[in-house]
Amino acid sequence: MSNAAASHRQHADHTTPLVRNAWYVAALSHEIERNLLPRTLLETRVVFFRKKDGSISALHDRCPHRSFPLSKSQLQDDTIVCGYHGITYDGTGRCLHVPSAPNAGGNIKIRNFAVVERAPLVWIWMGDAEQADPALIPDFSFLSAPTWKTVSGSFHMHSNYVAMHENLLDQTHFTFLHAGSVGTPEWATSPLEVSQNGDTVSLRRELKKSLPPGIYAVPMKLEGRMVDRLSEASFFGPAGHLALAKITVSEPIANEREEFRVNILHVFTPETQNTLHYWWFNSRDFGLDDEEASKFLYEASHAAYVEDVDALGWISDIVTTESEDYREFSFRSDRPGLMMRQVLSRLAAQEQAPATAVAAE
Amino acid sequence: MSNAAASHRQHADHTTPLVRNAWYVAALSHEIERNLLPRTLLETRVVFFRKKDGSISALHDRCPHRSFPLSKSQLQDDTIVCGYHGITYDGTGRCLHVPSAPNAGGNIKIRNFAVVERAPLVWIWMGDAEQADPALIPDFSFLSAPTWKTVSGSFHMHSNYVAMHENLLDQTHFTFLHAGSVGTPEWATSPLEVSQNGDTVSLRRELKKSLPPGIYAVPMKLEGRMVDRLSEASFFGPAGHLALAKITVSEPIANEREEFRVNILHVFTPETQNTLHYWWFNSRDFGLDDEEASKFLYEASHAAYVEDVDALGWISDIVTTESEDYREFSFRSDRPGLMMRQVLSRLAAQEQAPATAVAAE
Amino acid sequence: MSNAAASHRQHADHTTPLVRNAWYVAALSHEIERNLLPRTLLETRVVFFRKKDGSISALHDRCPHRSFPLSKSQLQDDTIVCGYHGITYDGTGRCLHVPSAPNAGGNIKIRNFAVVERAPLVWIWMGDAEQADPALIPDFSFLSAPTWKTVSGSFHMHSNYVAMHENLLDQTHFTFLHAGSVGTPEWATSPLEVSQNGDTVSLRRELKKSLPPGIYAVPMKLEGRMVDRLSEASFFGPAGHLALAKITVSEPIANEREEFRVNILHVFTPETQNTLHYWWFNSRDFGLDDEEASKFLYEASHAAYVEDVDALGWISDIVTTESEDYREFSFRSDRPGLMMRQVLSRLAAQEQAPATAVAAE
Ligand code: FES
Ligand code: FES
Ligand code: FES
Repeated sequence: MSNAAASHRQHADHTTPLVRNAWYVAALSHEIERNLLPRTLLETRVVFFRKKDGSISALHDRCPHRSFPLSKSQLQDDTIVCGYHGITYDGTGRCLHVPSAPNAGGNIKIRNFAVVERAPLVWIWMGDAEQADPALIPDFSFLSAPTWKTVSGSFHMHSNYVAMHENLLDQTHFTFLHAGSVGTPEWATSPLEVSQNGDTVSLRRELKKSLPPGIYAVPMKLEGRMVDRLSEASFFGPAGHLALAKITVSEPIANEREEFRVNILHVFTPETQNTLHYWWFNSRDFGLDDEEASKFLYEASHAAYVEDVDALGWISDIVTTESEDYREFSFRSDRPGLMMRQVLSRLAAQEQAPATAVAAE
Repeated sequence: MSNAAASHRQHADHTTPLVRNAWYVAALSHEIERNLLPRTLLETRVVFFRKKDGSISALHDRCPHRSFPLSKSQLQDDTIVCGYHGITYDGTGRCLHVPSAPNAGGNIKIRNFAVVERAPLVWIWMGDAEQADPALIPDFSFLSAPTWKTVSGSFHMHSNYVAMHENLLDQTHFTFLHAGSVGTPEWATSPLEVSQNGDTVSLRRELKKSLPPGIYAVPMKLEGRMVDRLSEASFFGPAGHLALAKITVSEPIANEREEFRVNILHVFTPETQNTLHYWWFNSRDFGLDDEEASKFLYEASHAAYVEDVDALGWISDIVTTESEDYREFSFRSDRPGLMMRQVLSRLAAQEQAPATAVAAE
Repeated sequence: MSNAAASHRQHADHTTPLVRNAWYVAALSHEIERNLLPRTLLETRVVFFRKKDGSISALHDRCPHRSFPLSKSQLQDDTIVCGYHGITYDGTGRCLHVPSAPNAGGNIKIRNFAVVERAPLVWIWMGDAEQADPALIPDFSFLSAPTWKTVSGSFHMHSNYVAMHENLLDQTHFTFLHAGSVGTPEWATSPLEVSQNGDTVSLRRELKKSLPPGIYAVPMKLEGRMVDRLSEASFFGPAGHLALAKITVSEPIANEREEFRVNILHVFTPETQNTLHYWWFNSRDFGLDDEEASKFLYEASHAAYVEDVDALGWISDIVTTESEDYREFSFRSDRPGLMMRQVLSRLAAQEQAPATAVAAE
């Protein structure tokens, strides 16, 4: 048991500056078309649009002339013409034309953000542009692979991202917050392996010969059959969490499918310190055309995530408004969350370091 | 005439820290049953529930594990099972069980608050637990005595409690804010005795042979009859105000009731610095079964208190938002209010003292 | 091109203290009648009423006794009787009567504000009373002259007044924000003379032999006729902006009207740092009884001003909430706006100066 409150410098919480040097999901591919989409990410207003060649531009949503929102402006070909005085910018934020001063504007530049599309996800780098290496974007190609079928949903949440990550790295809440729907008693008590690899914190759990919970049994049509379960879940960075589950029929019957896989991806991006854009994806490698299964998985997932979204909203309301003395307690089962909070704390401190140095002069 | 603005250190106002070392009304008895009631008192979230033995528990409404609201959790027998990870607490806030760490939790304790029920009132002590002496709770047993009949109501108000106390200690506003309904000209000009006894500030007023105002005349059926009136009202501490009125028929008729008593209790508890939970009670020792009288007294009281609630809300809006220079003026008639404000200022300063000492090091 | 961000001390922006030593429009004449009108101006609550002799009183809307809003009180003859304890004030704010202390009150005085009515405008001076010289009020007598016909409207805006002044001193946005409705291409490119005279910043533009825009052509019935245009627009102080336009038929026909004048007055008064009371007036010296023309001018003006109001609201939202690093760029066409911002910056600094000096002691 550790006292995290006394060590909030080591363990990130809702007051820790948001990590900017990371790839975050900005939007879904279909949200960005041939018009101007405003979205606030990491407390910065961004405007998105898709260029004629299909690539995506992301600029600070504020004209450097008189602060007019570019998202309320006109998209003309691959340029934005500011709705106030008509200054024209290309997709990199470079000023192309100042109507009232045709020879000026050469040194005006709107901040642009590196964007990489890996459909259905559009990733953005809001931090130091020099470090924006697309090789750092995790591979979630199963989301668009023909051998997988995905159902998905999204929420606008009231929560800091640390609490959301902690929720996802914690399986002890299944029995209580999601009473009965997700966990099973055997699963909750099966041994959990926790590991850390660089900034990645992972959980591994295995359970042989047990009855699968409804969320697996129904779409896999394995009700009443014993299965072996393996799940690997990980905090892969500030932007999200991925869980890979493998279900194997314990005593297979000839000509019957033996192995089933489900990948659950949670990606979420702080809008502000205490609000989140959140997208979830439930992908399976079986019953690809089974619309019944898709409907079931969507509804069961949505119902469970609503419970998390509500709970995190209530917690956010408390932690952001209460001034009462408060001491947070943690248990061994919180270790994955605390490891993640150390990672986020360290990453945030690294980014704040230079500013601090300047302030100390 | 004094300049209270220049002496706000001596005279509490809406910026003075709330006094915590006092018994306040937390709720009415019937509000606390076999479920979890959240209520913010003195800027602290509290959760209440009634135990099987009928006693009441009050805990800080925040699980010390991950800040989940206990009021959104489950009441099981006399324990609260946190809705997030199932940690179980008894009615004193002691941790009984941590599902994910069965041998841990021994040193976890949620802050609990002393509660004393004197039906229909439930009292709470939010300050230093060592000083929570039930003997300090004032005796309002008339509220439940069979020889008295009470009508009552409540408001959620936008006001600091100092302004509410000052309103109650002031009778010069009757003629204006409650034009005609409560006061009479003779009453307003009858001599007022002001006294202070420790932290209690009291008003005493007597008026012989005058026509009673409607609020007395109608339920007592004394319209047109001359009466002698005596009223004793007092600020009995941060939690409220009690007024005791005795009306005596000046020239009694044989076999007719001569003396009538009305007790008016105002109890109110800061929710925040500028909002209040307010309950009022109008108790009489006559016409106990007279439903007409009860209806009349409820409606007349409610109508007058709405005027106070509105006025204090407007004042709160001004004092909390205006930055304009402002100097408050007071008159002799404000002396009871200023005496009360000195009491609250001194009580607040005593509680702040240790913290100030630390800050000054 | 200059970097205004680096020089915000010289160029007022939404963070610059509001100039108080100026005549501002408080209300329209018809708004102030025989009742109590509350209005917040320059972050100060003011209550207005018209006295029996037709003159107007303006007082701080806060009783110095216990902060009750005078605007929720009673107007009796030419006095305000506070709704809380009945203290009576005359139209200058002098205390006439304290019901609970008949011999007191002599030294109580509510702050009053100099008001001058020049129908349909009511002007107020919120600053240093000694400097409130009515001779400083600009002459807009055309608003009530029988030889002019005026249409007008008003808005409650979300904007600092600096951005509003800058909008009005800038004609380069016509083509974009008001695409097609107000400007014409020839007008936009005709030479602009900028001049400064004391605190007044003026624009002068002339264009010979061009087709008039609809907003002139329609009401003047000059569609398809060539005209000579002359416009003089000026920032006449913190309170507003006046534009005088003269349209002359280039090749007049005998017995036909040759010259047409339109005066456009914009007056606006900060309610707070980022909200404005705004009134506009469009006055013409032709077609005085032409209701069709009035309707057309009202609707066309309103449509254009809605675009400005919306744009300035979006900009206000950005500048007041974004913390992202931001550098403002300006062009030659912004010179009138920057000159005005220098004036406002200097006026504000002069007013702040004594306070700063005291603080520095
Ligand atoms: S604000 Fe964008 S061009 Fe002027
Ligand atoms: S937050 Fe209450 S048990 Fe975890
Ligand atoms: S507050 Fe105005 S008279 Fe008391």
